[in-house]
Amino acid sequence: MRLRNKPWAQELIAAHPELITIAANSTPSTWQECFPSKQPLELEIGSGKGQFIMEKARQNPQHNFLALELQTAALAMILKKQVVAQLPNLQLLQANAQNLTELFAPQSVTKLYLNFSDPWPKTRHEKRRLVAPNFLKLYQQLLVPQGQLEFKTDNRGLFEYALCSLNNFPLHLEQVSLDLHASELAAENIPTEYEDKFSQKGQPIYFLQASFPEI
Amino acid sequence: MRLRNKPWAQELIAAHPELITIAANSTPSTWQECFPSKQPLELEIGSGKGQFIMEKARQNPQHNFLALELQTAALAMILKKQVVAQLPNLQLLQANAQNLTELFAPQSVTKLYLNFSDPWPKTRHEKRRLVAPNFLKLYQQLLVPQGQLEFKTDNRGLFEYALCSLNNFPLHLEQVSLDLHASELAAENIPTEYEDKFSQKGQPIYFLQASFPEI
Repeated sequence: MRLRNKPWAQELIAAHPELITIAANSTPSTWQECFPSKQPLELEIGSGKGQFIMEKARQNPQHNFLALELQTAALAMILKKQVVAQLPNLQLLQANAQNLTELFAPQSVTKLYLNFSDPWPKTRHEKRRLVAPNFLKLYQQLLVPQGQLEFKTDNRGLFEYALCSLNNFPLHLEQVSLDLHASELAAENIPTEYEDKFSQKGQPIYFLQASFPEI
Repeated sequence: MRLRNKPWAQELIAAHPELITIAANSTPSTWQECFPSKQPLELEIGSGKGQFIMEKARQNPQHNFLALELQTAALAMILKKQVVAQLPNLQLLQANAQNLTELFAPQSVTKLYLNFSDPWPKTRHEKRRLVAPNFLKLYQQLLVPQGQLEFKTDNRGLFEYALCSLNNFPLHLEQVSLDLHASELAAENIPTEYEDKFSQKGQPIYFLQASFPEI
């Protein structure tokens, strides 16, 4: 989802290098040095307006969280909230997921979140789907052995594709819910902004948790 | 789904040994000798009233079909229709799926169908679910290498379980639909009696096609 341009975004981002990294400029040799404590690192790819990752960071102070997002307008909205919240275990990163292996050392991430990723429904755009095998290969490199992937979406076609793609890679499916909000997992679910809006329409949210095999 | 007892069932079954085999009595050394032509053998486990398997046999005269069902009342309903239809490529078998490997030679079945199997929702009954690993092991023995399994259900919990169970076995997921009747697969779908009744309520039918890896 593309957000409207925010005229104040660039200035805010430039004013807070302690909270946000622009991949195009320079990336730290280890993400751990951006956080006050060296803790397991979890990464969300495509953080949107950041509700999920901020709440995740709030609830899990013993983990570090990195919000990766490409869009300046979205990042600025997360940053605006983070300037106030000052969560010590949250950092922002403006980057393209295509470049993940340049941004992360091998086996440096413990868990990866994909929330309501762009479905790219056309077959010729398959490689752009964040659950396509070309992306799974990148994830496997930066994740620790048996590192986990959590994925949720309201898009039926994308979830059907994800199930086959992960199975064939192969990943180990640990949990699947075909109606997250009606399941016992709902209690611990942290919704995204989009999910809040969407789930009121009564359509199911699909969820899975999977782990990579040891290489 | 248990059907009401049919007083005429036993007599009808006894009158048609050319169409139905009772596993408790004797099973042929090869199922192929029960059919006029030696053709790839496909097996439905739990045929209910038989609408699916009869239509499947009608549409695919170049394959042989075996309808396995435990309940006498259900079998008698299929048999009553088959006595009229006389589909040469359909045979009935009264047996318990637990005994599959005693009933079939290894690698003698090309495809297996599970339609609206009992969900057995309680954890302590997991082993009774027809997609539990103990059953997958049996299927793997009687199926040809890379033999296929098709499964559909309206039960969300059972389908979630099936996805994880098949993935972890591991089987190769070839197709998944989370709303079969709204998908492009709907055109070639053969509904069961239960499915006809159920799908009118507007809840989705889940479907998957998977194959066993070469041993």
